[in-house]
Amino acid sequence: MLKKLLITGANGTLGRLCRERMHPFAETLRISDLGDLGDAAPHEELVACDLGDKAGVEALVEGCDGIIHLGGQSTEGTWDAVRHANIEGVANLYEAARKSSAPPRIIFASSNHAIGFYKQDENLDAHATTRPDSLYGVSKVFGEAMASLYHDKFGIETASIRIGSCFPEPIDHRMLATWLSFDDFIRLIERIFIVPRLGCPIIYGASNNVGTWWDNTAVQYIGWTPQDSSEGFRAKLDAAMERPDKNDPRALYQGGTFCSDGIHE
Amino acid sequence: MLKKLLITGANGTLGRLCRERMHPFAETLRISDLGDLGDAAPHEELVACDLGDKAGVEALVEGCDGIIHLGGQSTEGTWDAVRHANIEGVANLYEAARKSSAPPRIIFASSNHAIGFYKQDENLDAHATTRPDSLYGVSKVFGEAMASLYHDKFGIETASIRIGSCFPEPIDHRMLATWLSFDDFIRLIERIFIVPRLGCPIIYGASNNVGTWWDNTAVQYIGWTPQDSSEGFRAKLDAAMERPDKNDPRALYQGGTFCSDGIHE
Amino acid sequence: MLKKLLITGANGTLGRLCRERMHPFAETLRISDLGDLGDAAPHEELVACDLGDKAGVEALVEGCDGIIHLGGQSTEGTWDAVRHANIEGVANLYEAARKSSAPPRIIFASSNHAIGFYKQDENLDAHATTRPDSLYGVSKVFGEAMASLYHDKFGIETASIRIGSCFPEPIDHRMLATWLSFDDFIRLIERIFIVPRLGCPIIYGASNNVGTWWDNTAVQYIGWTPQDSSEGFRAKLDAAMERPDKNDPRALYQGGTFCSDGIHE
Amino acid sequence: MLKKLLITGANGTLGRLCRERMHPFAETLRISDLGDLGDAAPHEELVACDLGDKAGVEALVEGCDGIIHLGGQSTEGTWDAVRHANIEGVANLYEAARKSSAPPRIIFASSNHAIGFYKQDENLDAHATTRPDSLYGVSKVFGEAMASLYHDKFGIETASIRIGSCFPEPIDHRMLATWLSFDDFIRLIERIFIVPRLGCPIIYGASNNVGTWWDNTAVQYIGWTPQDSSEGFRAKLDAAMERPDKNDPRALYQGGTFCSDGIHE
Amino acid sequence: MLKKLLITGANGTLGRLCRERMHPFAETLRISDLGDLGDAAPHEELVACDLGDKAGVEALVEGCDGIIHLGGQSTEGTWDAVRHANIEGVANLYEAARKSSAPPRIIFASSNHAIGFYKQDENLDAHATTRPDSLYGVSKVFGEAMASLYHDKFGIETASIRIGSCFPEPIDHRMLATWLSFDDFIRLIERIFIVPRLGCPIIYGASNNVGTWWDNTAVQYIGWTPQDSSEGFRAKLDAAMERPDKNDPRALYQGGTFCSDGIHE
Amino acid sequence: MLKKLLITGANGTLGRLCRERMHPFAETLRISDLGDLGDAAPHEELVACDLGDKAGVEALVEGCDGIIHLGGQSTEGTWDAVRHANIEGVANLYEAARKSSAPPRIIFASSNHAIGFYKQDENLDAHATTRPDSLYGVSKVFGEAMASLYHDKFGIETASIRIGSCFPEPIDHRMLATWLSFDDFIRLIERIFIVPRLGCPIIYGASNNVGTWWDNTAVQYIGWTPQDSSEGFRAKLDAAMERPDKNDPRALYQGGTFCSDGIHE
Repeated sequence: MLKKLLITGANGTLGRLCRERMHPFAETLRISDLGDLGDAAPHEELVACDLGDKAGVEALVEGCDGIIHLGGQSTEGTWDAVRHANIEGVANLYEAARKSSAPPRIIFASSNHAIGFYKQDENLDAHATTRPDSLYGVSKVFGEAMASLYHDKFGIETASIRIGSCFPEPIDHRMLATWLSFDDFIRLIERIFIVPRLGCPIIYGASNNVGTWWDNTAVQYIGWTPQDSSEGFRAKLDAAMERPDKNDPRALYQGGTFCSDGIHE
Repeated sequence: MLKKLLITGANGTLGRLCRERMHPFAETLRISDLGDLGDAAPHEELVACDLGDKAGVEALVEGCDGIIHLGGQSTEGTWDAVRHANIEGVANLYEAARKSSAPPRIIFASSNHAIGFYKQDENLDAHATTRPDSLYGVSKVFGEAMASLYHDKFGIETASIRIGSCFPEPIDHRMLATWLSFDDFIRLIERIFIVPRLGCPIIYGASNNVGTWWDNTAVQYIGWTPQDSSEGFRAKLDAAMERPDKNDPRALYQGGTFCSDGIHE
Repeated sequence: MLKKLLITGANGTLGRLCRERMHPFAETLRISDLGDLGDAAPHEELVACDLGDKAGVEALVEGCDGIIHLGGQSTEGTWDAVRHANIEGVANLYEAARKSSAPPRIIFASSNHAIGFYKQDENLDAHATTRPDSLYGVSKVFGEAMASLYHDKFGIETASIRIGSCFPEPIDHRMLATWLSFDDFIRLIERIFIVPRLGCPIIYGASNNVGTWWDNTAVQYIGWTPQDSSEGFRAKLDAAMERPDKNDPRALYQGGTFCSDGIHE
Repeated sequence: MLKKLLITGANGTLGRLCRERMHPFAETLRISDLGDLGDAAPHEELVACDLGDKAGVEALVEGCDGIIHLGGQSTEGTWDAVRHANIEGVANLYEAARKSSAPPRIIFASSNHAIGFYKQDENLDAHATTRPDSLYGVSKVFGEAMASLYHDKFGIETASIRIGSCFPEPIDHRMLATWLSFDDFIRLIERIFIVPRLGCPIIYGASNNVGTWWDNTAVQYIGWTPQDSSEGFRAKLDAAMERPDKNDPRALYQGGTFCSDGIHE
Repeated sequence: MLKKLLITGANGTLGRLCRERMHPFAETLRISDLGDLGDAAPHEELVACDLGDKAGVEALVEGCDGIIHLGGQSTEGTWDAVRHANIEGVANLYEAARKSSAPPRIIFASSNHAIGFYKQDENLDAHATTRPDSLYGVSKVFGEAMASLYHDKFGIETASIRIGSCFPEPIDHRMLATWLSFDDFIRLIERIFIVPRLGCPIIYGASNNVGTWWDNTAVQYIGWTPQDSSEGFRAKLDAAMERPDKNDPRALYQGGTFCSDGIHE
Repeated sequence: MLKKLLITGANGTLGRLCRERMHPFAETLRISDLGDLGDAAPHEELVACDLGDKAGVEALVEGCDGIIHLGGQSTEGTWDAVRHANIEGVANLYEAARKSSAPPRIIFASSNHAIGFYKQDENLDAHATTRPDSLYGVSKVFGEAMASLYHDKFGIETASIRIGSCFPEPIDHRMLATWLSFDDFIRLIERIFIVPRLGCPIIYGASNNVGTWWDNTAVQYIGWTPQDSSEGFRAKLDAAMERPDKNDPRALYQGGTFCSDGIHE
């Protein structure tokens, strides 16, 4: 059990999920985001913080033995937005971790968009060269590289989860492959904090879906076996919308429409 | 759902199976073979056709958006027989597909005999170099190469299934590894037509057997998980016959006795 | 069914297990160890034998069509102890097998300590270069090499099982990854004797544990699927002891404390 | 030194080259093609033969201990042309080899067009899956498969050379990568006949060119080290023509314009 | 020959080298750096520009068909320095390339410090997962990811050169492996601009040194063969200094002392 | 330069070579073998020692900073001979190294017979699974495993050289592939002692022969480039003897006749 678990980006969907569900895994949850965080439960500390504020992030991280780093830009944005939240923010986070009195174990919310330009008939493992599909995807490659640096140099352990699509349910056909259920996500987090030696792995974050493109063999040692599957939603999706054409970006690329979008200006 | 699904080789075992079971997947089944096809059901069109007849094959393919190509020589034969049905026939099929008004998605019934000379203690994935064990096996390598050409050049998608042993049940010890149940075969066909982007994969066609030699990791994206297993037939087989000696071709090679047979003249 | 199955090291934990459980797989069990073997059951022959006694081992092996070689030093020891039992003993065993009137199929009890210096965040398959963690581990590399030689040169088939931790239950956190249940071990032995062609495989011997480091894909053809899992013992272990620190040898290396132990003198 | 070396396709460019240059490697050269073969030198036998004539090919092959099979369609053609010369012809050749009183060692003139659809920024070794770019390319995949079959089944050794561009000099920019000098080709042939054990290798046939896409590491044992390079022709080519645009098939695909050509009808 | 070649970072060592040596490869050299660029030669345009100035970079890039991007922080620095020059600067460069009227081909000066935490007894090819050894190294991973994105999405071709140590001569023992001579560097640049199709390769930038750790097989198609070797400097180095101990970072890691340095604050 | 270099097996061919040639690399050569070592040169210490004598080996090793371990059985022998010299002897050597006041760097004379059962049309790199062809070959696998253990556990660095055929010249056709010239051997030894960090590599010891089976890419960092080639001896060999048939063990296996020899009794 962790003593103090920091959750950044706590006002996002996954942040709220973790705030609600990670209570049993830590004595105290330190909850953080930019804006109003509501009322603190007895086991919670609320700390508003802009990830671009270096000193603020240092204070935020101090005293935590676990971090779930969900904060930042969680989809494509302008370069300024991506750089501020996902470049500057991650740099601040790792410096804070390095300086803290006891270095925390970190979960870094990376993304399938770090490898989005692979096609949907390609199968990837943890050693696949990155192929980002967006500035957002590039920022995730940057974050994984920072995790690698601070592990090799300072021994700080990070699990970078290349999250597929973590939603209540899949909302298009591509997500039948990429869907990560909330429960499987929480189970993965739990395993990452339980395993005695974590190292610095890359993990594909998807449920036990029919038609996956991703192979987590390299991280068997984490001991995570997703329990849910997107299959139960297929009929509903088929009824609601046409399957995309084979050359539609949603059927062509693992990153879907991120691959056909332009640069946000 | 397909509009018109062509089944070639409809009088063979697998052809009859598909004729019976694929009804729900297509508005119309176009049923073809050399000889008498019986009576047409309301959802069926019957077209007798020799695959060596180029014009006939063009007419056969026109208007179909899906093809299950089971026609041709389905075991070792004389060179003339193999060439006529499996070389000439496949060439005609792909030319017809290219010329049709809307190119169909194709299932090509390849065979384990395309890799039959690997030993039974070797594990193969989709990238294994072919090692055919017969003229029949060579003709399947030829067919897979045609599928690759017409995909790269004209965008026609084919799934080449290296069928193990698709029988009601395994009838010798080797088939405990190679058996493909009828139900798993139908489920695979279904997945091939459902997946939005197929590409041009090689798929090993075997059920979820204990002791398999084949690894379908590369085609996880198809989303096929065989449900049946040969294991239930083991005791019956053990009672019926001796296990082959370790150096018997049936225990030595993946292709079994095809590897020890001579050339048919 | 085997005619005569030799079990060496029959007074050890695994030896006693095999003596008790392998009865249905062979007409006769030939039971051997250094010391007192108790009373012979009707289907048993008891043969006391020091593995270092070449002539004795020849007599021991003659007439057997299967051998489970568990005899020898089963943990780190002095060089003299390891050499006598695991070097000399194995050399005697293979010479005896070669000279016997009908060469037996052999199970060689190798060990995870043949690859113990890999870290716990590394995933290994059958082709991983050996990295022994002890003189004992080196002796297992020697044994696997002897198996390879006698297979390539004389056709004698051996399955080398790199046994993880075959105990009634896991007794520390590392064993959550390495545990091999007695039942899974027996099931594996059974498969090794059933498969028509064995070859000379390396098999990782662990149950279906959450967090395994080992990948048996290359030996799918054996048809062994472990049924048990260490997971049910996790809570009990967590209650009984602290999880080791990430840099403790028990969390760092696959071989655990064997890696930090010195040489026994 | 060979006793009798058969050269098929002797009226083609490479055939004439071999007829002229292979004299020192064999006591007798048996020279064959469809048409007029000119006058026989003292060390030559002239045998006109259509490769589609099974009996003729058997007579042609009988008595030869080496074959350089250059005959057939040497570029894209109609299906009928390709099938007759490269499918039927190769089938006849291997049957003749099997039936001959002493099986010959064979050089099969395969082609880069067996893998032509790979891009020019991809590096291939002998294990690359075939990606033919033409019916001609498919026929070469067929020929390599026949070579594999007759090796595994009857022990007949074949070297399949995936010839790049064997011309007096490169005539476009793509050939700077694919050029095979006449001298290097002859040196390769020599090595194939010299090496005690040939097996059934795939060899990329290109000189020591700057900018090659092909890696012959797997056939180091043949001992062929090409001595020539296309580099000396670069300036001349640059002066004579524009470099192709990066998306021109001549710059995009290893097979060049074969990849953008349609089917010959 | 290029029309207009932009050289950024023109006041650095490599910038001055390129300014001097690239004259024959382009009609015009556009020379840029932060400060005073001296006098313009007739074939030169001088443009002072801060890479952090987005509009300035757009103007700088417009009209160029080739870019050698040497500008930015060329060694470890504070995070602010690295971010400004190597993160912001590279983002500006790629946006400018995308917006320019004709997209240029780019050489991105990446660094061995993108993989610096590998040990000196490990051999790397282009597919090695990055292991940066510094914030500087992380910024190079970022730059390579940007190159990949703008290639996959907009077709802009970049060669990322992981430069070893480009100095007049090696100045410590580690550089005997990593040294890149000025001449070899210029030859590499030349090849990158000559090859018709570049794609988006990763290239290790080292001369033909005895004891290299890097394997450029994957980019053979570039056609670069380094001609120089560090070997001639070995005796001089041995005379000038002790070889480092095997556990000294200079002998242990490919990135040398970058791996043992702390974070610059 | 080494202070004191121990050469074991100094009366063998390679031992005498090293005694003669390694003088410039060490202040003192400590020369050892079983029998009479002749007269000591001023830079030599002569120490007769049986490798099976543990205390003797400890004294022998003490004070040396480099060891070339050539002692032991250098070809197939009886098990007793192999065990005494190559099992016991190597165990004694590593124990002595561990106990010495300053651990030496070791060259272990391993052998191609550790992988002799691979065929001559297979290409091996450092990660090939061992396939010994003799008890002698098994003893070399044992030695490599000891080297690995003492490196992982105690930091003692060893280069295991799988020596091909180190003779004045090749004496049969197989040696055209396996020949290691005396000069290349000495150059390799030199590189092993020069490189700052050695680690624990496996190196194939063959000259730059036409037709090699071995790939030393993984040990590029050693910086050894063999200069000699067997090619100059080919004509002489061809004149002296027939090339072996393709199925002769001398043409079939990398280990040659070791593979067809029986066990020495």
